[in-house]
Amino acid sequence: MSVTGKMLDTHPTGLGRVTREALVTCIDQVLECAQACTLCADACLAEEHMSELRRCIRTDLDCADVCNATARVLSRYGGDDADVVRDVLETCATVCLACGAECERHAKTHEHCAVCAEACRRCAEACRALLATLE
Amino acid sequence: MSVTGKMLDTHPTGLGRVTREALVTCIDQVLECAQACTLCADACLAEEHMSELRRCIRTDLDCADVCNATARVLSRYGGDDADVVRDVLETCATVCLACGAECERHAKTHEHCAVCAEACRRCAEACRALLATLE
Amino acid sequence: MSVTGKMLDTHPTGLGRVTREALVTCIDQVLECAQACTLCADACLAEEHMSELRRCIRTDLDCADVCNATARVLSRYGGDDADVVRDVLETCATVCLACGAECERHAKTHEHCAVCAEACRRCAEACRALLATLE
Amino acid sequence: MSVTGKMLDTHPTGLGRVTREALVTCIDQVLECAQACTLCADACLAEEHMSELRRCIRTDLDCADVCNATARVLSRYGGDDADVVRDVLETCATVCLACGAECERHAKTHEHCAVCAEACRRCAEACRALLATLE
Repeated sequence: MSVTGKMLDTHPTGLGRVTREALVTCIDQVLECAQACTLCADACLAEEHMSELRRCIRTDLDCADVCNATARVLSRYGGDDADVVRDVLETCATVCLACGAECERHAKTHEHCAVCAEACRRCAEACRALLATLE
Repeated sequence: MSVTGKMLDTHPTGLGRVTREALVTCIDQVLECAQACTLCADACLAEEHMSELRRCIRTDLDCADVCNATARVLSRYGGDDADVVRDVLETCATVCLACGAECERHAKTHEHCAVCAEACRRCAEACRALLATLE
Repeated sequence: MSVTGKMLDTHPTGLGRVTREALVTCIDQVLECAQACTLCADACLAEEHMSELRRCIRTDLDCADVCNATARVLSRYGGDDADVVRDVLETCATVCLACGAECERHAKTHEHCAVCAEACRRCAEACRALLATLE
Repeated sequence: MSVTGKMLDTHPTGLGRVTREALVTCIDQVLECAQACTLCADACLAEEHMSELRRCIRTDLDCADVCNATARVLSRYGGDDADVVRDVLETCATVCLACGAECERHAKTHEHCAVCAEACRRCAEACRALLATLE
């Protein structure tokens, strides 16, 4: 079990089981996406033809920052303030789709972009899945 | 002039003057709000009757994290990816309004909550003003 | 393999294998610690006798922020600037030891503090192990 | 007065006046440096000969992340845990000096690097000045 799952099991505020599982999955996916984007930006910076990757580096940095903030907001979600969480999840999904689409364009040339595009896609899906349980 | 204004004046990508000014104002307000929220959370933690401030501390922490990510995304805004920036600005405004409303409830008792509520209100306004120039 | 490992395998800058493995382990431990601390702070905020946990909440928030910055700096480490990385690792270990010691004091009463103390301990160790390969 | 100064004036934990003033100055300088570095990284990404700026972009990103974490830790400083604050300040000064030196190399060619180098220099000084009051 991830540290997120272990920690939420010991949290005094009990969420229902379904929401808790969707929440753990989503937080872990968001954190994985943040890390993939931070590393993809740096790998792009090291590529020989890096000037073609300007937009990819920017969107990676944006996505990493938004994902890190999203993971923190979700980690403090206790069942109320659903409006804030919904907006945060929708924005996170938007940013991940934009970043995933940009990384996809370089996926054949740069394997780090392929791995990152996949992390973005899974993250957007996890955000949408958690959103569905909150509506 | 703030460091944001000075730096954007030296940026090779020129935005139009109207957008640039709205952008500088918004970034600076978002950063001020982030800082007010970080400090309000900590001041709440030091209050004698801190258990009545649990929700205020949480929303302060959420608002600080979302504002910090928003400032970074805005600082990388070069005129494209308006979809991402719009979603980020809308979410930032939502979080600021939620945090401002919670701080307002304690504004009579705790001056730090009054200052923070005002910073949140100005930040939400600046986000909406920048949004208006992007539509 | 973690996303950190997968991504560093595709990075154009090759570090030696020993350093790369110590780096992956350290980054993943730092990220786990950041997440444990964010969640421990929130669980403390939800405890009935939360006023005894003020210091624990503060040190959790500090540790999460320092660990998140550390993970990002390490993710950009390409073999030079060892001075910066060394200082960052030493500070991260100091903060983790301080946070772990505070969490340990509440470990018998609050299971989230026990899990977090353990994450802090492992993170400090991973920082020291990576430091040892850089000297 | 900056929002940092206003907020610390309303904080229930009173630091001595000298420490409080050094603290406000330092936090504001650290935040200004973080913002200069975020914007310098992005301006470098937009330069035609960006491949000569790889190292500058990386050190800007590192410096922004370390400064943001430093500002948060300092904002929660209530007078104890001086060990943690000292380590954080020393690391922040180290990173600022490294980033300032790299930016200085491009200061003649790129004005954003000149502004950023100056922000880094002032930030390192403010960290050292606060350190001196804590010893």
